Amino acid sequence: MTWANSPQVDDHDLALLTDLYQLTMLQAYWKEGMSERATFSLFFRRLPPTRRFMLACGQQHAAALASQLRFKDHHLAMLEDTGQFDARFLKWLGDWRFSGDIWCLPEGTPVFANQPLMEVDAPIAEAQLLESLIMNLVQLETLLASKAVRLVLAARGHPVVDFGMRRMHGIDAAVRGVRAYRTAGLDGTSNVLGGLRHGLALRGTMAHSYILAHDDEREAFRAFTRNYPATTLLVDTHDTLAAVDKIIDLLAEEPTLEVAAIRLDSGDLGELATAARDRLDAAGHADIRIIASSGLDEHRIAALLDEGAPIDAFGVGTQMGVSADAPVIDLSYKLVEYAGIPRLKHSPGKVNLPGRKQLYRHHDESGQLAGDTLALRDEALATGEPLLIPLVHNGQLLEDGMALAFTARERVQRVLQQMPASLRELPPGESDYPVTLSDGLEALASRY
Amino acid sequence: MTWANSPQVDDHDLALLTDLYQLTMLQAYWKEGMSERATFSLFFRRLPPTRRFMLACGQQHAAALASQLRFKDHHLAMLEDTGQFDARFLKWLGDWRFSGDIWCLPEGTPVFANQPLMEVDAPIAEAQLLESLIMNLVQLETLLASKAVRLVLAARGHPVVDFGMRRMHGIDAAVRGVRAYRTAGLDGTSNVLGGLRHGLALRGTMAHSYILAHDDEREAFRAFTRNYPATTLLVDTHDTLAAVDKIIDLLAEEPTLEVAAIRLDSGDLGELATAARDRLDAAGHADIRIIASSGLDEHRIAALLDEGAPIDAFGVGTQMGVSADAPVIDLSYKLVEYAGIPRLKHSPGKVNLPGRKQLYRHHDESGQLAGDTLALRDEALATGEPLLIPLVHNGQLLEDGMALAFTARERVQRVLQQMPASLRELPPGESDYPVTLSDGLEALASRY
Repeated sequence: MTWANSPQVDDHDLALLTDLYQLTMLQAYWKEGMSERATFSLFFRRLPPTRRFMLACGQQHAAALASQLRFKDHHLAMLEDTGQFDARFLKWLGDWRFSGDIWCLPEGTPVFANQPLMEVDAPIAEAQLLESLIMNLVQLETLLASKAVRLVLAARGHPVVDFGMRRMHGIDAAVRGVRAYRTAGLDGTSNVLGGLRHGLALRGTMAHSYILAHDDEREAFRAFTRNYPATTLLVDTHDTLAAVDKIIDLLAEEPTLEVAAIRLDSGDLGELATAARDRLDAAGHADIRIIASSGLDEHRIAALLDEGAPIDAFGVGTQMGVSADAPVIDLSYKLVEYAGIPRLKHSPGKVNLPGRKQLYRHHDESGQLAGDTLALRDEALATGEPLLIPLVHNGQLLEDGMALAFTARERVQRVLQQMPASLRELPPGESDYPVTLSDGLEALASRY
Repeated sequence: MTWANSPQVDDHDLALLTDLYQLTMLQAYWKEGMSERATFSLFFRRLPPTRRFMLACGQQHAAALASQLRFKDHHLAMLEDTGQFDARFLKWLGDWRFSGDIWCLPEGTPVFANQPLMEVDAPIAEAQLLESLIMNLVQLETLLASKAVRLVLAARGHPVVDFGMRRMHGIDAAVRGVRAYRTAGLDGTSNVLGGLRHGLALRGTMAHSYILAHDDEREAFRAFTRNYPATTLLVDTHDTLAAVDKIIDLLAEEPTLEVAAIRLDSGDLGELATAARDRLDAAGHADIRIIASSGLDEHRIAALLDEGAPIDAFGVGTQMGVSADAPVIDLSYKLVEYAGIPRLKHSPGKVNLPGRKQLYRHHDESGQLAGDTLALRDEALATGEPLLIPLVHNGQLLEDGMALAFTARERVQRVLQQMPASLRELPPGESDYPVTLSDGLEALASRY
């Protein structure tokens, strides 16, 4: 029994997870008879200063939801109670089904400023209605995948495990966050519901309280290891190196026990890892691995590996779980075309790109990423791979598109190999990755 | 029909919203026959540098969930599939009900470093099991209430409205966030599901896309105002002051229309508010209010009011919705007593306070907050109000305790009046609010 890889998103009354003005504008469009098709584009205006790229994530979830969204009777009753909606409109809303198209970047695609993560083509009221929900869903997963991939890069092939659910922003962040971590390439998660639902391996060690509840640390190790062969023992409750010695003694005394790893959770992790490694090796336990946790982020992991700390795997919590150095993306969902005419709110001092778009990505002969061209959707560029694909057509989920979500993790692993070093570096800084506009988009933008 | 003020929390398979090690430790305790009572305390070791106090929030939700938590058959089947759990243990887990006690600070109580927000007394395995879920639930609401109350303080009586759901961390953060905002004293929210579920007034204006989809801004204003008498019109799509003039013209032309407010969403909000106020007043529209939004935080709101900007209400989104300047609390859930013996992991350089506790708050003759004493639960201090109250006893929710959640908003309004100025100030800095230890706690702590 498993939920893994299900494209379903639980409903949780999601039709009402919207801003009130989406519903009042919807009713206004309905009354005014404004039903021409519009295109809205989801993008961010700038990268957070601590990011060189973002990993687009969550679009498939959002597309699946949009095509399934329904207003139920109890929703309509509550909207009626607000006094802002007509009975005839609410009846129409009860029958409403999304009828438009949704284009997306495949999940796990690196994305830069002003590039569409999604475009929604639909009668304007429908496309507008989806704004708040799509932004909320895509924001979370893109934010977390973009942070998590930095930890994967920092760990240079060593496994990274999510320990962060307790400090993430609520239930949905904790559960759907694991989906983003799976995409970004994490090795496992301590989060049972998240891991089972989104198909990431469950990992667990033990807490300090387990040691403290026993009168003797060695007896706590013994009891836990008898119950869980090949377990990980937490060694910093009292004195880290003394605990390592207790484990060595315990294994000498009871050779049938098997300890897979120890976890360091406080102190100077590099020094303690070196000393613990020496003691374990000297006792013939070269196979016992060392896991480190305790306020780690990508910079601390890179520094530990730079100093040669013999750490085999990293447990990461808080910093990753809230994307602490960039807890929000400047996401926008903007009207770019209505009734066949390109539109845009002109924002002084910002890049303003009207029209429906396609994003082309170029590779050099060796397969390395060489740059992007942002173009109009109806331009057919001669070179580059068009990245935006239709996931929903006439309100129906396209199976081919949804299947892409399940290859997102492999897409990320591949693209990390193809990236120029300037994108993979961790410190804040500009990358020299070239992003240009097509002739058609340049010409259109110059008129706005 | 309303969900407002319901103490229920939807289940969403929450029994599995835990870290794997909680379940493996639970099984280990069960096998070892360790069923003595333990107390775990939920607290944070230090305030974020940008906070002078936190508002404890979310404890009632967490207590309600704990007392209702159930492992269902499909949960047990998935745990069995992990290969880490015995059939007999899983049968026991299926029958398990929380049997302990939960003490909480009333929601909306200001709280400082090392003060318990909750204490859980139960057989150790049960108390341990609740750790991850309680931390996740309380973290979110405490984080958001503590940020939101700063916006309330900054706005000096002007209404503050939540516009932030699109950039919050997922669905639960957006919905349960509104509960925290209600407690903190916000005036309304744009979030329909959050507002209906948690009883905060719904507010909405219009989006730029609505203006852009019309060929003429004035006709867009006319159509919207005809549909929504006493609405708020967004005026910055093209040119803010020109749009104000269009509204004045429109109202002269069609005097039956009624506009309640305009919303400024870009540019120099102070200057534009002053100019718009002048034009509206000169045209006899002193009753049309001015709402400002656009990347506002508490410091920007305070600065606008300091410069005398005639802004009547503030719409706040991103900065509040992720508590951007403090996106995480250093929450801990620590074993402080087991089998009648105080315990604690000794953390060098940190305050280490074992034992079950009570928090006493002192007021001076005029009712102002005068300081706290953190004491042992079984000490009866002669002065001060004991703040921790039982919400769950022997696994049963106590109605009296739960009722406190519904008065949290009033509690916050009252306590803001009682606070010394040093706590209400917005810039980072230490407060001189005195927090001391009781003789009993001091004596116990000195032995650890």
